[in-house]
Amino acid sequence: MYRTNTCGELRLSHVGQTVTLAGWVQRTRKMGGMTFVDLRDRYGITQLVFDESRDADLTARANKLGREFCIQAVGAVSERSNKNPNMPTGDIEIIVSGLTVLSTSDTPPFTIEDNTDGGDELRMKYRYLDLRRSAVRKNLELRHRMTILVRNFLDSRDFIEVETPILVGSTPEGARDFVVPSRMNPGQFYALPQSPQTLKQLLMVSGFDRYFQIAKCFRDEDLRADRQPEFTQIDCEMSFVHQEDVLEVFEDMARYLFKEVRGVELPAKLRQMTWHEAMRLYGSDKPDLRFGMTFVELMDVMKKGKFAVFDDAAYIGAICAPGCAAYTRKQLDQLTEFVKRPQVGAKGLVYVKYNEDGTIKSSVDKFYSQEDLLELKQKMGARDGDLVLILSGDNANKTRIQLCALRLEMGERLGLRDSNKFECLWIVDFPLFEWSDEEQRLMATHHPFTLPNPDDIPLLDEHPEQVRAVAYDFVCNGIEVGGGSLRIHDGALQEKMFKILGFTPERAMAQFGFLINAFKYGAPPHAGLAFGLDRFVSIMAGLDSIRDCIAFPKNNSGRDVMLDAPSELEPGQLDELNLKVTL
Amino acid sequence: MYRTNTCGELRLSHVGQTVTLAGWVQRTRKMGGMTFVDLRDRYGITQLVFDESRDADLTARANKLGREFCIQAVGAVSERSNKNPNMPTGDIEIIVSGLTVLSTSDTPPFTIEDNTDGGDELRMKYRYLDLRRSAVRKNLELRHRMTILVRNFLDSRDFIEVETPILVGSTPEGARDFVVPSRMNPGQFYALPQSPQTLKQLLMVSGFDRYFQIAKCFRDEDLRADRQPEFTQIDCEMSFVHQEDVLEVFEDMARYLFKEVRGVELPAKLRQMTWHEAMRLYGSDKPDLRFGMTFVELMDVMKKGKFAVFDDAAYIGAICAPGCAAYTRKQLDQLTEFVKRPQVGAKGLVYVKYNEDGTIKSSVDKFYSQEDLLELKQKMGARDGDLVLILSGDNANKTRIQLCALRLEMGERLGLRDSNKFECLWIVDFPLFEWSDEEQRLMATHHPFTLPNPDDIPLLDEHPEQVRAVAYDFVCNGIEVGGGSLRIHDGALQEKMFKILGFTPERAMAQFGFLINAFKYGAPPHAGLAFGLDRFVSIMAGLDSIRDCIAFPKNNSGRDVMLDAPSELEPGQLDELNLKVTL
Repeated sequence: MYRTNTCGELRLSHVGQTVTLAGWVQRTRKMGGMTFVDLRDRYGITQLVFDESRDADLTARANKLGREFCIQAVGAVSERSNKNPNMPTGDIEIIVSGLTVLSTSDTPPFTIEDNTDGGDELRMKYRYLDLRRSAVRKNLELRHRMTILVRNFLDSRDFIEVETPILVGSTPEGARDFVVPSRMNPGQFYALPQSPQTLKQLLMVSGFDRYFQIAKCFRDEDLRADRQPEFTQIDCEMSFVHQEDVLEVFEDMARYLFKEVRGVELPAKLRQMTWHEAMRLYGSDKPDLRFGMTFVELMDVMKKGKFAVFDDAAYIGAICAPGCAAYTRKQLDQLTEFVKRPQVGAKGLVYVKYNEDGTIKSSVDKFYSQEDLLELKQKMGARDGDLVLILSGDNANKTRIQLCALRLEMGERLGLRDSNKFECLWIVDFPLFEWSDEEQRLMATHHPFTLPNPDDIPLLDEHPEQVRAVAYDFVCNGIEVGGGSLRIHDGALQEKMFKILGFTPERAMAQFGFLINAFKYGAPPHAGLAFGLDRFVSIMAGLDSIRDCIAFPKNNSGRDVMLDAPSELEPGQLDELNLKVTL
Repeated sequence: MYRTNTCGELRLSHVGQTVTLAGWVQRTRKMGGMTFVDLRDRYGITQLVFDESRDADLTARANKLGREFCIQAVGAVSERSNKNPNMPTGDIEIIVSGLTVLSTSDTPPFTIEDNTDGGDELRMKYRYLDLRRSAVRKNLELRHRMTILVRNFLDSRDFIEVETPILVGSTPEGARDFVVPSRMNPGQFYALPQSPQTLKQLLMVSGFDRYFQIAKCFRDEDLRADRQPEFTQIDCEMSFVHQEDVLEVFEDMARYLFKEVRGVELPAKLRQMTWHEAMRLYGSDKPDLRFGMTFVELMDVMKKGKFAVFDDAAYIGAICAPGCAAYTRKQLDQLTEFVKRPQVGAKGLVYVKYNEDGTIKSSVDKFYSQEDLLELKQKMGARDGDLVLILSGDNANKTRIQLCALRLEMGERLGLRDSNKFECLWIVDFPLFEWSDEEQRLMATHHPFTLPNPDDIPLLDEHPEQVRAVAYDFVCNGIEVGGGSLRIHDGALQEKMFKILGFTPERAMAQFGFLINAFKYGAPPHAGLAFGLDRFVSIMAGLDSIRDCIAFPKNNSGRDVMLDAPSELEPGQLDELNLKVTL
């Protein structure tokens, strides 16, 4: 070893020992004849001292050390006269007697500090330097810690981790596949798995009983701000279980993780909210319960033949922002602009201020009487000082989604979305299908293997849009962290699902024949769930983005700017694959 | 839950309880008015009893159960009159009072037994049924157990698991890459990593200090019997270490695994053998030490101007097969045929029998005198009853490799390769380069990042073929289970290596620029190692092939015959990727 100790472990009890440390130069300071060097490694920072009066040559060499030089230093642990209580090693310093430069460093393109001066692109290009920042490294340490905890928890519950292949078959249903040309099978392609869904179901058919895998998944989608072409799932499946059994196991897992990682106690039983209730109260299937401002429906109160916009609306809903009656014209205009942004898409915003002095001021004063607005106040449960914000529209769920955006914006403005507070719940009873405007047909809300609610099976033929799925999402702080469902284990029902989703029997067989066949050999009832690991870690770390809990993330064009990938191939590589690029 | 207990847990202490079990029908037997059903799940087998005299309808239904039906049964735990000491649940049986068929089963295409009647292709096509066989499932349970142990061991030694990306850049040096066309970057391709080698080195530059990952790796090679296009590595890297530090950590890990998994104590310190010694004594860089028969070089003894084949040989070597002097003509002919197979490639085999009665019989009796053969006997340390087998050739190492094949064959015939015995060692001091007949140039024996032995650096320019690498392999029972090296962490030395390997500076920069650049910012001395997980599990499981410790392996054409992958894409998919197949 190049060291006897790490830069994080020396304490007063080590004083007098001769030690060897190795690490990086975080900072050097020259004070008179003394030179101080902060030496950094993964475990901490230790102060090195070079004293000109003891060894002028050595100190001269120390004075030439630059930031991020990688060095080895030998010296005696000594008590500091000027202790630093903010550092675990702040009681000691090393009086250096020997110095070896292991490698020099060019000046880094940005500072290696928690608050670096490096922009996003630069940090990504030099990700290996960005990862030296303890803020980033800590996220990856947390990710490691969480996967160790997850594995040991699931192992203790008899789950077996099984690796499923990365080179699988393409299934164009769902998101777009990444594909891999096969040289040994010319003209044919593997696909990278969007998830191990069908393979884990096969493992249930195999009697594995309880499976998990921390699995890489791949989707060739146009990347939104917080999506990556490859991402990681905690992927689980169980046999012989009902919905409550699944929720219980994974609630326990979440409870264990929150306790171990953050010291937070989740409630003994998490709230379960139906998808319909979540849409009605929060306009979202992943409501943020860290704050209130639940929706109030105003179809009765505001439809009075006085204001055509509301009279014609299919939905009118509002939230009550506590203590916001004093919002200025400018603030209200900002909110109106916010809801009118294309990403939100509302036509306008109606507000009613219930002022502290008892007066009422609204943007619809010319349509509604003070009595009308007092009736609204009561309906909203508003108090003096509150601000009521109303949206309406001709599509109830679309308007609810707009109102959700407004609610989250108000939560943000009021500082109610505290990243150190955790509100988890289950959303249940999702619709089995959702209408795709793009495809002009019903699509599976989750995937084609989700079990319809047995009570709703009679509706499958005539009213599939009304059929509920036995599906559930784990939501925390307005983020869908996990989701799953009971699965179909009956070949005939599975074939019916494929039919409703527009598969011809031939196409269903070509794509999912292995699963349909497997169901002929005693398939057990089974169910599963997958957590998004990147998202789970980012919530635990209190991060807004998943990028900083991924060691080498890609940018929004799917590029790794450090590796400069993807890139063009050498011509011979394409020839071997029997491929030609047609640009 | 569909069950109160598993099929593996009920004992005499449960007698009298009413339980519900769920599982698969392993077997049914009708004896008079009684029907016995062996119900199987992952945890074991429990006997169900249906009694016609108690419930004729129920028993009639039980009589219709077929093999592999998935059922649920309710009944009372009862003590068996006829106990089965071979089954953990053999003291009890369930007197069934309720039966539900969860799913029926077609007759499986092969028997779900340890010794199945299914051939390889059939078992792979119905892998989900093959995985029901406890022999196969146990291998995957072992794999799970080993990964849990590895992770917890490495975590306890401060290693952090970091996930590196699967979509990386192509590096045509080394094996062939699998590539992935990028839709968002038309005409460009990602590659799947052959290993996380360069990324883990970057993590060392980042100061991660100790990294590991149980990582999927991909190589598009023509598949030999025991290779898979995707395989799994226990991939590790450490900073600030010398070779002995690395060997110590991973010896400890191996020791821990052998102890926990197999109850085997490895020696306190494993033997280290240089590559040259291994080649000289065993003709292999992965010698099987479970048995002797080390090589004896006979250049002095056999070169007597009597036998032209030997007189002209660049190498003559032999092994002594104990107790094999009684081998028949036919057995000796088989051995001669064996060494002449193209896979071995020897021109012929010379044998000398030292018979129990003191007589000597050899295939070179007309060339050598009895005195010559007695001299040979002494040189070989042979005893009466032994058989000496001699190979010669004009290329020393090629002949040694042939003799190695013969040695292993003799070990096999003599039953000396016991899969319950484990002989581990380190091979060290590999040559840094090896000559490629195919490419007609020096190639890196391991990879271009391996550190040359500092003592040999003066040889780099004039005699690169003599330079030793600071590289090591972990070998067990004649199988290379792991391998690694100290790495170059100096940019100038790395550039020199690229040059010796025939890279132009431009090509080195294009492919490995990120690493060359990273070395400019204080790269620490570092080293690493990777174990082949599939191989490690197969050794622990006593298997000859890695296939049965992989859930869904591919065949020798790289096909998953169950998924029928790879396959042709839909035309729209190719268009989106700007690709055309040119067959």
